[in-house]
Amino acid sequence: MLTNRRVIAIEWGDCDPAGIVYFPRYLEWFDACTAALFERAGLKKAAMLDRFGIIGIPLVDVRARFIAPSTFGDSVTVDTRIAAWRRSSFDVEHRLLRGEAVAAEGFETRVWTARDPSAASGLRSRPIPPEVIARFK
Amino acid sequence: MLTNRRVIAIEWGDCDPAGIVYFPRYLEWFDACTAALFERAGLKKAAMLDRFGIIGIPLVDVRARFIAPSTFGDSVTVDTRIAAWRRSSFDVEHRLLRGEAVAAEGFETRVWTARDPSAASGLRSRPIPPEVIARFK
Amino acid sequence: MLTNRRVIAIEWGDCDPAGIVYFPRYLEWFDACTAALFERAGLKKAAMLDRFGIIGIPLVDVRARFIAPSTFGDSVTVDTRIAAWRRSSFDVEHRLLRGEAVAAEGFETRVWTARDPSAASGLRSRPIPPEVIARFK
Amino acid sequence: MLTNRRVIAIEWGDCDPAGIVYFPRYLEWFDACTAALFERAGLKKAAMLDRFGIIGIPLVDVRARFIAPSTFGDSVTVDTRIAAWRRSSFDVEHRLLRGEAVAAEGFETRVWTARDPSAASGLRSRPIPPEVIARFK
Repeated sequence: MLTNRRVIAIEWGDCDPAGIVYFPRYLEWFDACTAALFERAGLKKAAMLDRFGIIGIPLVDVRARFIAPSTFGDSVTVDTRIAAWRRSSFDVEHRLLRGEAVAAEGFETRVWTARDPSAASGLRSRPIPPEVIARFK
Repeated sequence: MLTNRRVIAIEWGDCDPAGIVYFPRYLEWFDACTAALFERAGLKKAAMLDRFGIIGIPLVDVRARFIAPSTFGDSVTVDTRIAAWRRSSFDVEHRLLRGEAVAAEGFETRVWTARDPSAASGLRSRPIPPEVIARFK
Repeated sequence: MLTNRRVIAIEWGDCDPAGIVYFPRYLEWFDACTAALFERAGLKKAAMLDRFGIIGIPLVDVRARFIAPSTFGDSVTVDTRIAAWRRSSFDVEHRLLRGEAVAAEGFETRVWTARDPSAASGLRSRPIPPEVIARFK
Repeated sequence: MLTNRRVIAIEWGDCDPAGIVYFPRYLEWFDACTAALFERAGLKKAAMLDRFGIIGIPLVDVRARFIAPSTFGDSVTVDTRIAAWRRSSFDVEHRLLRGEAVAAEGFETRVWTARDPSAASGLRSRPIPPEVIARFK
Protein backbone atom coordinates (compact mmCIF):
# COMPACT_ATOMS: atom_id res chain seq x y z
CA MET A 1 0.00 0.00 0.00
CA LEU A 2 1.21 3.45 -0.89
CA THR A 3 2.59 5.45 2.03
CA ASN A 4 3.68 9.06 2.02
CA ARG A 5 6.17 10.62 4.42
CA ARG A 6 6.10 14.33 5.04
CA VAL A 7 8.40 16.48 7.18
CA ILE A 8 6.81 19.24 9.26
CA ALA A 9 8.74 22.09 10.83
CA ILE A 10 6.89 23.21 13.94
CA GLU A 11 6.55 26.97 14.19
CA TRP A 12 6.12 29.43 17.06
CA GLY A 13 2.62 30.16 15.80
CA ASP A 14 1.66 26.49 16.07
CA CYS A 15 2.23 26.52 19.84
CA ASP A 16 0.11 27.62 22.78
CA PRO A 17 0.92 29.41 26.04
CA ALA A 18 2.16 26.12 27.52
CA GLY A 19 4.82 26.19 24.79
CA ILE A 20 3.56 23.03 23.08
CA VAL A 21 1.70 22.45 19.82
CA TYR A 22 -1.91 23.62 20.01
CA PHE A 23 -3.66 20.33 19.21
CA PRO A 24 -5.93 21.44 16.30
CA ARG A 25 -2.71 22.09 14.36
CA TYR A 26 -2.05 18.36 14.32
CA LEU A 27 -5.38 17.91 12.58
CA GLU A 28 -4.47 20.60 10.02
CA TRP A 29 -1.19 18.80 9.35
CA PHE A 30 -2.92 15.45 9.01
CA ASP A 31 -5.33 17.03 6.52
CA ALA A 32 -2.40 18.32 4.47
CA CYS A 33 -0.75 14.89 4.73
CA THR A 34 -3.83 13.22 3.28
CA ALA A 35 -3.70 15.66 0.35
CA ALA A 36 0.01 14.88 -0.04
CA LEU A 37 -0.70 11.14 -0.13
CA PHE A 38 -3.27 11.67 -2.90
CA GLU A 39 -0.79 13.86 -4.76
CA ARG A 40 1.81 11.10 -4.48
CA ALA A 41 -0.81 8.77 -6.01
CA GLY A 42 -1.05 11.18 -8.95
CA LEU A 43 -4.20 12.89 -7.70
CA LYS A 44 -3.34 16.50 -7.03
CA LYS A 45 -6.32 17.94 -5.19
CA ALA A 46 -7.45 20.76 -7.51
CA ALA A 47 -7.20 18.53 -10.60
CA MET A 48 -8.88 15.63 -8.78
CA LEU A 49 -11.89 17.77 -7.82
CA ASP A 50 -12.23 18.98 -11.41
CA ARG A 51 -11.85 15.60 -13.00
CA PHE A 52 -14.22 13.66 -10.76
CA GLY A 53 -16.74 16.43 -10.13
CA ILE A 54 -16.44 16.34 -6.34
CA ILE A 55 -16.25 19.24 -3.88
CA GLY A 56 -13.71 17.49 -1.71
CA ILE A 57 -13.24 14.56 0.63
CA PRO A 58 -14.70 15.95 3.87
CA LEU A 59 -14.38 14.10 7.14
CA VAL A 60 -17.24 12.45 8.97
CA ASP A 61 -15.06 11.14 11.78
CA VAL A 62 -11.64 12.09 13.11
CA ARG A 63 -9.64 10.80 16.03
CA ALA A 64 -6.19 11.66 17.28
CA ARG A 65 -3.99 10.45 20.11
CA PHE A 66 -1.30 12.72 21.48
CA ILE A 67 1.48 10.69 23.06
CA ALA A 68 4.32 13.17 23.53
CA PRO A 69 4.28 16.95 23.13
CA SER A 70 6.33 18.85 20.56
CA THR A 71 7.38 22.47 20.46
CA PHE A 72 8.56 25.17 18.05
CA GLY A 73 11.85 24.35 16.40
CA ASP A 74 11.07 20.62 16.44
CA SER A 75 10.96 18.76 13.17
CA VAL A 76 8.58 15.83 12.93
CA THR A 77 7.64 13.40 10.19
CA VAL A 78 4.20 12.05 9.38
CA ASP A 79 3.64 8.70 7.66
CA THR A 80 0.25 8.50 5.98
CA ARG A 81 -1.59 5.62 4.35
CA ILE A 82 -5.12 4.54 3.45
CA ALA A 83 -6.29 1.97 6.00
CA ALA A 84 -9.55 0.96 4.31
CA TRP A 85 -11.65 1.68 1.24
CA ARG A 86 -15.44 1.36 1.26
CA ARG A 87 -18.05 2.18 -1.37
CA SER A 88 -18.05 5.95 -0.87
CA SER A 89 -15.87 6.45 2.21
CA PHE A 90 -12.35 5.55 3.27
CA ASP A 91 -10.06 5.62 6.29
CA VAL A 92 -6.71 7.36 6.53
CA GLU A 93 -4.08 6.72 9.18
CA HIS A 94 -1.26 9.07 10.18
CA ARG A 95 1.69 8.36 12.45
CA LEU A 96 3.63 11.41 13.59
CA LEU A 97 7.19 10.58 14.58
CA ARG A 98 9.76 12.59 16.48
CA GLY A 99 12.97 10.74 15.82
CA GLU A 100 11.99 7.07 16.09
CA ALA A 101 9.18 7.57 18.58
CA VAL A 102 5.50 7.89 17.69
CA ALA A 103 4.44 11.22 19.20
CA ALA A 104 0.90 11.35 17.80
CA GLU A 105 -1.51 9.35 15.68
CA GLY A 106 -4.46 10.39 13.56
CA PHE A 107 -7.41 8.52 12.08
CA GLU A 108 -9.76 10.05 9.54
CA THR A 109 -12.89 8.75 7.88
CA ARG A 110 -13.58 10.71 4.72
CA VAL A 111 -16.35 10.69 2.17
CA TRP A 112 -16.15 11.12 -1.61
CA THR A 113 -18.59 14.04 -1.85
CA ALA A 114 -20.35 15.90 -4.65
CA ARG A 115 -22.82 18.76 -4.71
CA ASP A 116 -26.46 17.70 -4.79
CA PRO A 117 -29.02 20.50 -4.69
CA SER A 118 -31.70 17.96 -3.77
CA ALA A 119 -29.95 17.00 -0.50
CA ALA A 120 -30.72 18.92 2.70
CA SER A 121 -27.04 19.76 3.15
CA GLY A 122 -26.49 20.41 -0.54
CA LEU A 123 -23.94 17.60 -0.55
CA ARG A 124 -24.11 13.86 -1.21
CA SER A 125 -21.67 10.95 -1.09
CA ARG A 126 -20.68 9.29 -4.36
CA PRO A 127 -19.08 5.91 -5.09
CA ILE A 128 -15.30 6.17 -5.16
CA PRO A 129 -14.13 5.49 -8.73
CA PRO A 130 -12.14 2.22 -8.97
CA GLU A 131 -9.38 4.07 -10.85
CA VAL A 132 -8.84 6.24 -7.77
CA ILE A 133 -8.46 3.23 -5.48
CA ALA A 134 -6.19 1.49 -7.98
CA ARG A 135 -3.64 4.30 -7.74
CA PHE A 136 -2.89 3.52 -4.09
CA LYS A 137 -1.85 -0.09 -4.72
CA MET B 1 -23.84 17.92 36.16
CA LEU B 2 -22.85 21.40 35.06
CA THR B 3 -23.38 22.09 31.36
CA ASN B 4 -22.34 25.19 29.44
CA ARG B 5 -23.94 26.43 26.24
CA ARG B 6 -22.00 28.65 23.91
CA VAL B 7 -23.08 30.34 20.68
CA ILE B 8 -20.60 30.38 17.80
CA ALA B 9 -20.91 32.63 14.77
CA ILE B 10 -19.25 30.90 11.83
CA GLU B 11 -17.00 33.19 9.84
CA TRP B 12 -15.78 33.25 6.25
CA GLY B 13 -12.26 32.51 7.51
CA ASP B 14 -13.49 29.31 9.20
CA CYS B 15 -14.51 27.82 5.86
CA ASP B 16 -12.64 26.00 3.13
CA PRO B 17 -12.84 26.10 -0.68
CA ALA B 18 -15.88 23.78 -0.54
CA GLY B 19 -17.60 26.58 1.37
CA ILE B 20 -18.01 24.53 4.57
CA VAL B 21 -16.27 24.74 7.94
CA TYR B 22 -12.67 23.52 7.76
CA PHE B 23 -12.86 20.70 10.31
CA PRO B 24 -9.94 21.65 12.62
CA ARG B 25 -11.96 24.77 13.48
CA TYR B 26 -14.49 22.58 15.24
CA LEU B 27 -11.70 21.33 17.46
CA GLU B 28 -10.64 24.91 18.22
CA TRP B 29 -14.22 25.75 19.16
CA PHE B 30 -14.53 22.67 21.35
CA ASP B 31 -11.30 23.68 23.11
CA ALA B 32 -12.72 27.14 23.79
CA CYS B 33 -15.98 25.53 24.97
CA THR B 34 -14.08 23.42 27.51
CA ALA B 35 -12.43 26.59 28.83
CA ALA B 36 -15.87 28.25 28.97
CA LEU B 37 -17.27 25.32 30.97
CA PHE B 38 -14.44 25.65 33.49
CA GLU B 39 -15.02 29.40 33.66
CA ARG B 40 -18.70 28.75 34.36
CA ALA B 41 -17.54 26.50 37.19
CA GLY B 42 -15.60 29.45 38.61
CA LEU B 43 -12.27 28.33 37.18
CA LYS B 44 -11.15 30.97 34.71
CA LYS B 45 -8.19 29.46 32.88
CA ALA B 46 -5.38 31.92 33.70
CA ALA B 47 -6.31 32.02 37.40
CA MET B 48 -6.74 28.24 37.50
CA LEU B 49 -3.25 27.63 36.12
CA ASP B 50 -1.76 30.03 38.65
CA ARG B 51 -3.64 28.68 41.61
CA PHE B 52 -3.06 24.98 40.98
CA GLY B 53 0.43 25.22 39.51
CA ILE B 54 -0.46 23.50 36.23
CA ILE B 55 0.54 24.40 32.69
CA GLY B 56 -2.83 23.48 31.25
CA ILE B 57 -5.15 20.59 30.60
CA PRO B 58 -3.69 19.20 27.35
CA LEU B 59 -5.45 16.51 25.36
CA VAL B 60 -4.24 12.95 25.04
CA ASP B 61 -7.18 11.84 22.92
CA VAL B 62 -9.71 13.68 20.80
CA ARG B 63 -12.52 12.46 18.60
CA ALA B 64 -15.10 14.29 16.58
CA ARG B 65 -18.01 13.26 14.39
CA PHE B 66 -19.26 15.58 11.69
CA ILE B 67 -22.89 14.91 10.89
CA ALA B 68 -23.98 17.92 8.85
CA PRO B 69 -21.86 20.69 7.37
CA SER B 70 -22.14 24.37 8.34
CA THR B 71 -21.05 27.48 6.51
CA PHE B 72 -20.22 31.16 7.09
CA GLY B 73 -23.14 33.15 8.41
CA ASP B 74 -24.51 30.13 10.29
CA SER B 75 -24.90 30.38 14.02
CA VAL B 76 -24.46 27.19 16.01
CA THR B 77 -24.56 26.34 19.70
CA VAL B 78 -22.31 23.96 21.58
CA ASP B 79 -23.38 22.19 24.78
CA THR B 80 -20.40 21.04 26.85
CA ARG B 81 -20.17 18.85 29.94
CA ILE B 82 -17.70 16.66 31.77
CA ALA B 83 -18.49 13.01 31.01
CA ALA B 84 -16.05 11.37 33.46
CA TRP B 85 -13.45 12.25 36.06
CA ARG B 86 -10.50 9.98 36.78
CA ARG B 87 -7.48 10.42 39.07
CA SER B 88 -5.54 12.79 36.80
CA SER B 89 -7.55 12.82 33.58
CA PHE B 90 -11.11 13.57 32.55
CA ASP B 91 -13.44 13.36 29.57
CA VAL B 92 -15.32 16.25 28.00
CA GLU B 93 -18.27 15.93 25.62
CA HIS B 94 -19.50 18.56 23.18
CA ARG B 95 -22.67 18.57 21.11
CA LEU B 96 -22.83 21.16 18.37
CA LEU B 97 -26.38 22.02 17.35
CA ARG B 98 -27.75 23.85 14.35
CA GLY B 99 -31.28 24.62 15.31
CA GLU B 100 -32.48 21.44 17.02
CA ALA B 101 -30.25 19.07 15.06
CA VAL B 102 -26.90 17.74 16.24
CA ALA B 103 -24.46 18.74 13.49
CA ALA B 104 -21.23 17.61 15.19
CA GLU B 105 -19.98 15.97 18.35
CA GLY B 106 -16.65 16.14 20.14
CA PHE B 107 -14.98 13.99 22.76
CA GLU B 108 -11.81 15.02 24.55
CA THR B 109 -9.66 13.25 27.11
CA ARG B 110 -7.56 15.77 28.98
CA VAL B 111 -4.87 15.51 31.63
CA TRP B 112 -4.23 17.75 34.63
CA THR B 113 -0.62 18.57 33.80
CA ALA B 114 2.28 20.28 35.58
CA ARG B 115 5.89 20.95 34.63
CA ASP B 116 8.35 18.30 35.78
CA PRO B 117 11.97 18.83 34.72
CA SER B 118 12.70 15.18 35.56
CA ALA B 119 10.22 13.88 32.96
CA ALA B 120 11.38 13.22 29.39
CA SER B 121 8.71 15.56 28.03
CA GLY B 122 9.17 18.12 30.81
CA LEU B 123 5.54 17.53 31.79
CA ARG B 124 3.79 15.16 34.19
CA SER B 125 0.19 14.42 35.11
CA ARG B 126 -1.02 15.40 38.59
CA PRO B 127 -4.05 14.27 40.62
CA ILE B 128 -7.04 16.51 39.96
CA PRO B 129 -7.83 18.41 43.20
CA PRO B 130 -11.20 17.32 44.68
CA GLU B 131 -12.21 20.98 44.98
CA VAL B 132 -11.97 21.27 41.20
CA ILE B 133 -14.25 18.30 40.61
CA ALA B 134 -16.69 19.53 43.26
CA ARG B 135 -17.32 22.71 41.31
CA PHE B 136 -18.93 20.80 38.43
CA LYS B 137 -21.60 19.17 40.57
CA MET C 1 -21.19 56.77 9.16
CA LEU C 2 -22.25 53.32 10.29
CA THR C 3 -20.01 51.78 12.94
CA ASN C 4 -20.20 48.28 14.33
CA ARG C 5 -18.92 47.19 17.73
CA ARG C 6 -18.05 43.58 18.35
CA VAL C 7 -16.89 41.87 21.54
CA ILE C 8 -14.15 39.26 21.24
CA ALA C 9 -13.30 36.75 23.95
CA ILE C 10 -9.63 35.86 23.64
CA GLU C 11 -8.98 32.14 23.85
CA TRP C 12 -6.01 29.99 24.89
CA GLY C 13 -5.67 28.87 21.28
CA ASP C 14 -5.30 32.46 20.10
CA CYS C 15 -2.10 32.91 22.14
CA ASP C 16 1.50 32.00 21.50
CA PRO C 17 4.28 30.64 23.76
CA ALA C 18 4.87 34.18 25.11
CA GLY C 19 1.30 33.98 26.43
CA ILE C 20 0.02 36.84 24.25
CA VAL C 21 -2.22 36.90 21.19
CA TYR C 22 -0.47 35.49 18.12
CA PHE C 23 -0.73 38.52 15.83
CA PRO C 24 -2.35 36.93 12.73
CA ARG C 25 -5.38 36.29 14.95
CA TYR C 26 -5.99 40.04 15.10
CA LEU C 27 -6.23 40.04 11.32
CA GLU C 28 -8.73 37.16 11.44
CA TRP C 29 -10.82 39.09 13.95
CA PHE C 30 -10.66 42.25 11.86
CA ASP C 31 -11.84 40.23 8.85
CA ALA C 32 -14.81 38.93 10.85
CA CYS C 33 -15.51 42.49 12.06
CA THR C 34 -15.68 43.74 8.48
CA ALA C 35 -18.22 41.01 7.71
CA ALA C 36 -20.16 42.01 10.84
CA LEU C 37 -20.22 45.65 9.73
CA PHE C 38 -21.63 44.61 6.35
CA GLU C 39 -24.19 42.42 8.09
CA ARG C 40 -25.21 45.37 10.25
CA ALA C 41 -25.69 47.31 7.02
CA GLY C 42 -28.09 44.59 5.87
CA LEU C 43 -25.54 42.81 3.70
CA LYS C 44 -25.02 39.36 5.17
CA LYS C 45 -22.01 37.93 3.38
CA ALA C 46 -23.44 34.79 1.73
CA ALA C 47 -26.52 36.65 0.47
CA MET C 48 -24.39 39.61 -0.67
CA LEU C 49 -22.13 37.38 -2.78
CA ASP C 50 -25.15 35.73 -4.39
CA ARG C 51 -27.02 38.94 -5.06
CA PHE C 52 -24.15 40.93 -6.54
CA GLY C 53 -22.33 38.07 -8.25
CA ILE C 54 -19.02 38.62 -6.48
CA ILE C 55 -16.66 36.06 -5.00
CA GLY C 56 -15.83 38.21 -2.00
CA ILE C 57 -14.12 41.42 -0.99
CA PRO C 58 -10.49 40.31 -0.85
CA LEU C 59 -7.77 42.54 0.56
CA VAL C 60 -5.07 44.17 -1.50
CA ASP C 61 -3.49 45.96 1.45
CA VAL C 62 -3.63 45.41 5.19
CA ARG C 63 -1.88 47.16 8.03
CA ALA C 64 -2.10 46.70 11.77
CA ARG C 65 -0.51 48.39 14.76
CA PHE C 66 -0.18 46.50 18.02
CA ILE C 67 -0.05 48.90 20.94
CA ALA C 68 -0.60 46.71 23.99
CA PRO C 69 -0.66 42.92 24.22
CA SER C 70 -3.71 40.89 25.27
CA THR C 71 -3.96 37.37 26.60
CA PHE C 72 -6.44 34.50 27.02
CA GLY C 73 -9.35 35.37 29.27
CA ASP C 74 -9.27 39.01 28.15
CA SER C 75 -12.34 40.47 26.52
CA VAL C 76 -11.78 43.18 23.93
CA THR C 77 -14.08 45.20 21.70
CA VAL C 78 -13.50 46.20 18.09
CA ASP C 79 -15.08 49.28 16.52
CA THR C 80 -15.24 49.02 12.74
CA ARG C 81 -16.19 51.56 10.09
CA ILE C 82 -15.64 52.27 6.40
CA ALA C 83 -13.03 55.02 6.06
CA ALA C 84 -13.31 55.59 2.29
CA TRP C 85 -15.18 54.37 -0.76
CA ARG C 86 -13.64 54.42 -4.22
CA ARG C 87 -14.89 53.10 -7.55
CA SER C 88 -14.15 49.44 -6.93
CA SER C 89 -12.22 49.45 -3.67
CA PHE C 90 -12.76 50.71 -0.14
CA ASP C 91 -10.94 51.15 3.15
CA VAL C 92 -11.98 49.71 6.50
CA GLU C 93 -10.69 50.83 9.88
CA HIS C 94 -10.75 48.85 13.11
CA ARG C 95 -9.95 50.00 16.62
CA LEU C 96 -9.50 47.26 19.19
CA LEU C 97 -10.10 48.46 22.72
CA ARG C 98 -9.26 46.88 26.05
CA GLY C 99 -11.32 48.88 28.50
CA GLU C 100 -10.95 52.46 27.30
CA ALA C 101 -7.48 52.03 25.79
CA VAL C 102 -6.78 51.36 22.13
CA ALA C 103 -4.73 48.14 22.15
CA ALA C 104 -4.54 47.60 18.38
CA GLU C 105 -5.63 49.17 15.12
CA GLY C 106 -6.28 47.68 11.72
CA PHE C 107 -6.55 49.13 8.22
CA GLU C 108 -7.79 47.16 5.24
CA THR C 109 -8.11 48.02 1.58
CA ARG C 110 -10.55 45.67 -0.08
CA VAL C 111 -11.75 45.20 -3.63
CA TRP C 112 -15.24 44.36 -4.91
CA THR C 113 -14.24 41.27 -6.89
CA ALA C 114 -15.90 38.96 -9.39
CA ARG C 115 -14.74 35.94 -11.36
CA ASP C 116 -13.40 36.73 -14.81
CA PRO C 117 -12.04 33.76 -16.78
CA SER C 118 -10.29 36.20 -19.13
CA ALA C 119 -8.11 37.65 -16.34
CA ALA C 120 -4.74 36.06 -15.54
CA SER C 121 -5.78 35.54 -11.92
CA GLY C 122 -9.32 34.52 -12.84
CA LEU C 123 -10.58 37.50 -10.84
CA ARG C 124 -11.39 41.11 -11.68
CA SER C 125 -12.52 44.17 -9.74
CA ARG C 126 -16.01 45.53 -10.34
CA PRO C 127 -17.58 48.91 -9.56
CA ILE C 128 -19.17 48.92 -6.13
CA PRO C 129 -22.95 49.27 -6.57
CA PRO C 130 -24.22 52.65 -5.24
CA GLU C 131 -26.92 50.81 -3.27
CA VAL C 132 -24.19 49.05 -1.29
CA ILE C 133 -22.49 52.30 -0.37
CA ALA C 134 -25.82 53.92 0.50
CA ARG C 135 -26.42 51.34 3.21
CA PHE C 136 -23.49 52.58 5.28
CA LYS C 137 -24.76 56.15 5.57
CA MET D 1 22.77 41.35 3.98
CA LEU D 2 21.63 37.86 4.85
CA THR D 3 18.54 36.71 2.96
CA ASN D 4 16.59 33.51 3.50
CA ARG D 5 14.42 31.79 0.91
CA ARG D 6 11.66 29.46 1.99
CA VAL D 7 9.31 27.35 -0.09
CA ILE D 8 5.68 27.17 1.00
CA ALA D 9 3.20 24.57 -0.25
CA ILE D 10 -0.27 26.07 -0.11
CA GLU D 11 -2.83 23.74 1.41
CA TRP D 12 -6.60 23.34 1.09
CA GLY D 13 -6.94 24.50 4.70
CA ASP D 14 -5.13 27.77 3.90
CA CYS D 15 -7.87 28.78 1.47
CA ASP D 16 -11.26 30.41 1.88
CA PRO D 17 -14.62 29.86 0.16
CA ALA D 18 -13.42 31.96 -2.79
CA GLY D 19 -10.77 29.27 -3.29
CA ILE D 20 -7.85 31.63 -2.60
CA VAL D 21 -5.48 31.95 0.34
CA TYR D 22 -7.20 33.39 3.40
CA PHE D 23 -5.02 36.47 3.95
CA PRO D 24 -4.05 36.00 7.63
CA ARG D 25 -2.22 32.85 6.49
CA TYR D 26 0.26 35.06 4.65
CA LEU D 27 1.05 36.76 7.94
CA GLU D 28 1.58 33.37 9.61
CA TRP D 29 3.95 32.38 6.82
CA PHE D 30 5.84 35.66 7.07
CA ASP D 31 6.19 35.10 10.82
CA ALA D 32 7.65 31.63 10.20
CA CYS D 33 9.94 33.13 7.53
CA THR D 34 11.31 35.64 10.03
CA ALA D 35 12.08 32.77 12.42
CA ALA D 36 13.73 30.90 9.54
CA LEU D 37 15.92 33.92 8.72
CA PHE D 38 17.06 34.10 12.36
CA GLU D 39 17.74 30.36 12.32
CA ARG D 40 19.83 30.80 9.19
CA ALA D 41 21.77 33.45 11.12
CA GLY D 42 22.50 30.84 13.79
CA LEU D 43 19.74 32.02 16.12
CA LYS D 44 17.23 29.21 16.44
CA LYS D 45 14.24 30.71 18.21
CA ALA D 46 14.01 28.57 21.39
CA ALA D 47 17.77 28.83 22.03
CA MET D 48 17.75 32.56 21.25
CA LEU D 49 15.01 33.25 23.80
CA ASP D 50 16.89 31.29 26.45
CA ARG D 51 20.25 32.82 25.77
CA PHE D 52 19.16 36.46 25.62
CA GLY D 53 16.40 36.29 28.23
CA ILE D 54 13.66 37.56 25.91
CA ILE D 55 10.09 36.34 25.52
CA GLY D 56 10.10 36.84 21.77
CA ILE D 57 10.25 39.46 19.06
CA PRO D 58 6.60 40.58 18.94
CA LEU D 59 5.33 42.90 16.23
CA VAL D 60 4.26 46.46 16.80
CA ASP D 61 3.45 47.09 13.14
CA VAL D 62 2.71 44.85 10.20
CA ARG D 63 1.76 45.60 6.65
CA ALA D 64 1.12 43.37 3.69
CA ARG D 65 0.25 43.93 0.04
CA PHE D 66 -1.53 41.23 -1.90
CA ILE D 67 -0.83 41.53 -5.60
CA ALA D 68 -2.02 38.23 -7.06
CA PRO D 69 -4.02 35.46 -5.41
CA SER D 70 -2.74 31.93 -4.87
CA THR D 71 -4.62 28.72 -4.27
CA PHE D 72 -4.16 25.20 -2.86
CA GLY D 73 -1.63 23.16 -4.75
CA ASP D 74 0.42 26.26 -5.59
CA SER D 75 4.01 26.42 -4.41
CA VAL D 76 5.40 29.83 -3.59
CA THR D 77 8.73 31.08 -2.29
CA VAL D 78 9.35 33.83 0.24
CA ASP D 79 12.55 35.88 0.35
CA THR D 80 13.13 37.46 3.74
CA ARG D 81 15.68 40.00 4.94
CA ILE D 82 16.18 42.56 7.68
CA ALA D 83 15.54 46.04 6.25
CA ALA D 84 16.65 48.11 9.25
CA TRP D 85 18.01 47.73 12.76
CA ARG D 86 17.28 50.29 15.48
CA ARG D 87 18.15 50.32 19.18
CA SER D 88 15.48 47.88 20.31
CA SER D 89 13.38 47.34 17.19
CA PHE D 90 13.95 46.20 13.63
CA ASP D 91 12.18 45.89 10.30
CA VAL D 92 11.74 42.71 8.28
CA GLU D 93 10.77 42.53 4.61
CA HIS D 94 9.25 39.56 2.82
CA ARG D 95 8.67 39.08 -0.90
CA LEU D 96 6.41 36.19 -1.84
CA LEU D 97 7.03 34.97 -5.37
CA ARG D 98 4.98 32.71 -7.61
CA GLY D 99 7.35 31.81 -10.36
CA GLU D 100 9.17 35.06 -11.12
CA ALA D 101 6.30 37.35 -10.15
CA VAL D 102 5.90 39.04 -6.78
CA ALA D 103 2.48 37.92 -5.55
CA ALA D 104 2.62 39.48 -2.07
CA GLU D 105 4.86 41.55 0.14
CA GLY D 106 5.12 41.83 3.90
CA PHE D 107 6.67 44.38 6.24
CA GLU D 108 7.09 43.79 9.95
CA THR D 109 8.39 46.00 12.73
CA ARG D 110 9.42 43.87 15.69
CA VAL D 111 10.70 44.63 19.14
CA TRP D 112 13.34 42.81 21.19
CA THR D 113 11.15 42.16 24.25
CA ALA D 114 11.71 40.89 27.78
CA ARG D 115 9.41 40.37 30.75
CA ASP D 116 9.25 43.32 33.13
CA PRO D 117 6.83 42.94 36.06
CA SER D 118 7.03 46.71 36.64
CA ALA D 119 5.57 47.51 33.19
CA ALA D 120 1.81 47.82 32.76
CA SER D 121 1.84 45.17 30.05
CA GLY D 122 4.38 42.99 31.87
CA LEU D 123 6.72 43.42 28.91
CA ARG D 124 9.44 45.91 28.00
CA SER D 125 11.71 46.48 25.02
CA ARG D 126 15.44 45.82 25.42
CA PRO D 127 18.44 46.94 23.35
CA ILE D 128 19.23 44.43 20.64
CA PRO D 129 22.64 42.87 21.43
CA PRO D 130 25.29 43.87 18.84
CA GLU D 131 26.25 40.19 18.46
CA VAL D 132 22.73 39.48 17.19
CA ILE D 133 22.92 42.20 14.56
CA ALA D 134 26.41 41.11 13.53
CA ARG D 135 25.13 37.68 12.53
CA PHE D 136 23.03 39.13 9.70
CA LYS D 137 25.98 40.76 7.92
